Amino acid sequence: MSVLAVGTVAFDSIETPFGKAERILGGSGTYIALAARYLAAPVRLVGVVGRDFPEEHVTMLRERSIDTEGLVRDEGGETFFWAGRYHYDLNRRDTLATHLNVLATFEPEVPAAYRDSRIVCLGNLDPTVQAKVLDQMDAPELVILDTMNYWIEHTPKELRRTLGRVDVLVVNDSEARELSGEPNLVRAARVIRAMGPQTLVIKKGEHGALLFSNGAVFSAPAYPLEDLFDPTGAGDVFMGGFAGHLARTDTSDPEEWRRAVILGSALASYCVEAFGTERLLDLAAEELEQRIAAFHALSAIPAMENAARGA
Amino acid sequence: MSVLAVGTVAFDSIETPFGKAERILGGSGTYIALAARYLAAPVRLVGVVGRDFPEEHVTMLRERSIDTEGLVRDEGGETFFWAGRYHYDLNRRDTLATHLNVLATFEPEVPAAYRDSRIVCLGNLDPTVQAKVLDQMDAPELVILDTMNYWIEHTPKELRRTLGRVDVLVVNDSEARELSGEPNLVRAARVIRAMGPQTLVIKKGEHGALLFSNGAVFSAPAYPLEDLFDPTGAGDVFMGGFAGHLARTDTSDPEEWRRAVILGSALASYCVEAFGTERLLDLAAEELEQRIAAFHALSAIPAMENAARGA
Repeated sequence: MSVLAVGTVAFDSIETPFGKAERILGGSGTYIALAARYLAAPVRLVGVVGRDFPEEHVTMLRERSIDTEGLVRDEGGETFFWAGRYHYDLNRRDTLATHLNVLATFEPEVPAAYRDSRIVCLGNLDPTVQAKVLDQMDAPELVILDTMNYWIEHTPKELRRTLGRVDVLVVNDSEARELSGEPNLVRAARVIRAMGPQTLVIKKGEHGALLFSNGAVFSAPAYPLEDLFDPTGAGDVFMGGFAGHLARTDTSDPEEWRRAVILGSALASYCVEAFGTERLLDLAAEELEQRIAAFHALSAIPAMENAARGA
Repeated sequence: MSVLAVGTVAFDSIETPFGKAERILGGSGTYIALAARYLAAPVRLVGVVGRDFPEEHVTMLRERSIDTEGLVRDEGGETFFWAGRYHYDLNRRDTLATHLNVLATFEPEVPAAYRDSRIVCLGNLDPTVQAKVLDQMDAPELVILDTMNYWIEHTPKELRRTLGRVDVLVVNDSEARELSGEPNLVRAARVIRAMGPQTLVIKKGEHGALLFSNGAVFSAPAYPLEDLFDPTGAGDVFMGGFAGHLARTDTSDPEEWRRAVILGSALASYCVEAFGTERLLDLAAEELEQRIAAFHALSAIPAMENAARGA
C-alpha cells in the first residue's frame, strides 16, 4: 500500500572522524523514500530541487521504485544544501552551512495521483509547509511527522497547529524534552500526546527507540554497531522503514507497530554504516532478515517464573 | 548461596528537585546488601562505620537477613559522609561534600566465616582496598566490581591491577568510555574485556543496561518511570540484585545472566521511587513479580518471519 514521503531533497557535505564527502545526495525526503521502498509500494516523493540537481539522481530514485512525479525542479535557484561536521563520538554535530536555496520558496504540490496515499510521512520541514501537504490529501490512514528544535523554538504556534492534525510524531529525545518542557521522557510523552499525536516515537540514537501509544510503551534496543560511519539520515530512514511497514499491515494490531519500530531501526542501522545513502541503495532481503534476527537475540528476556521468590 | 557485599556504609545528605533528606543511611555496601537479600542467602557485609553510627541501622540490616559480622565500627572517627544535589533532570548531580572520615584508613578484614562466599561484590571503593578483600577470599565463583571516574583518573595502575582479578565489571556508560578511551560502547566493551573482566555490564540510567559477554550482547530496557524521586544508590542496587540472582543459579547458563540484569534493573527501578533506601526495606515478592512482567511487556519483539520481504 502507498506511502507518501515529503521532505527535503538535498546536497549534503559531511565530515566525520572517518572521512569527508562533498555534495552527496541527501535530504529527509530522499532518505524516507529510500527506506520505505524496501517494504511498501508505491512510494511517492514530494519535494523540490534546483537547476543544479543532476538528472542521474532522479533516475537512481526511479530505478529504486520511487515515484518522482512529485519531485519538482525549480529552475530559479539551486538545490537545498547542508554541511555538517560530526564530533569524534558521532553523537554531536556542528552545522557548518545551511543554504535553503529553492526550499525557501517551496510550495508543495501533491500530484492528483498521490492524494489517496495510505500513509503520509512528513519529514522535517517548516510546519506550515507540512500543513499545506495535509490540505491536499484525501483521507490518509496515518499522518507521521518529524520536526526539529529549530521549528520548536522559532515557529511554536505553527508547529502546534500542525501537530493537532498528526497521528504519529517521530522525534529524538532532546526534541521531545524541548517540545514538552519535561526532562522525564515518560512525562514528555504524556504532554506531547495531549497535543494531538496518538502515538509518539522517541529516537534515542545509540540507546534505541521508545514507542508510546495507548496504555503501552515499547522499548526497542539499538543495534550495537562497532563501525558507525556517518549518522546522517538515520532518523529519516527510521521513519521511512517504520512507515513502510505500517503501510502494508493492519495498523489496529499493536504488534505491527512494534515490528515497524524494529524495521525502522534495522534499516537505520545499515544506513549509518557508510556515507550518505550509499548503504541503502541495494540492501538484500537477507541482510534485513539477519538484522531483524539480531534485534530479537539482543533483547530477548527469558521466562522468569518465580524469579522474584526471595532467599 | 552466599553473596559478599563490600562497600561504603555511609550517611548521605541528598537534595533533589522534590525534597531534601539529611544524613540518611546510604553507601554502596548498604545498597548492594539490601538488594541482594531479596534473592540470595546468606548476604554478608564488609564495611566500616564510625562512632556516630546508630546501632538501630545495624539492627535494621540484621532484621533484613544481612550478616553484619564484617561491619566494623571504628571508634576513632565518624562515618563516611556524602552530600549531593541532583539537577532538575536527575541525570546529573553535583557533589557538595565528601568526608571520608573512617573510610580514609579502612583496612577491610574479611571474617573467616565469609571467606567461602560464592559471589563477591566489590562496590565502588579504592581499588587497592578492593584487592585486599580478594586477597582474603578462598575461591569465589564470581568477582563483580564497580568503580568510578575518580579511580579511573587518580589510580589507573591500581585499578588495572585489580581489574585483572575480576570476572564482571559493572560501570555506567561514561565510566566505560573513560576507562576504555573509546566513545563507542561496543568498542569500549571490547577494550575493557581485554583488561580482565570476561563480562561487562554498562548501566545507562534511563536508557537501560547492556550486558557484554562471550560473543553476545543483551540490551535491557529501563523501566519507564514517571516519578523518579532519588537516583542515589540505583547503580549499587542493580549490582546487588544482579549478584543476588547469580548467587542462586547456574552461572554457566547465559539466560541466567539476562535474568540477573532484569532483576537488578527491577530492584533499581523501585529504589529510585523514594529517598535513600526507603523503598528497598520491605518490597513484596508480588511487587517484584509485577515489575518483571512489565520488563517483558516493555521489550517483547513479536515474531517477524518474512518481515524483510520487500514491496
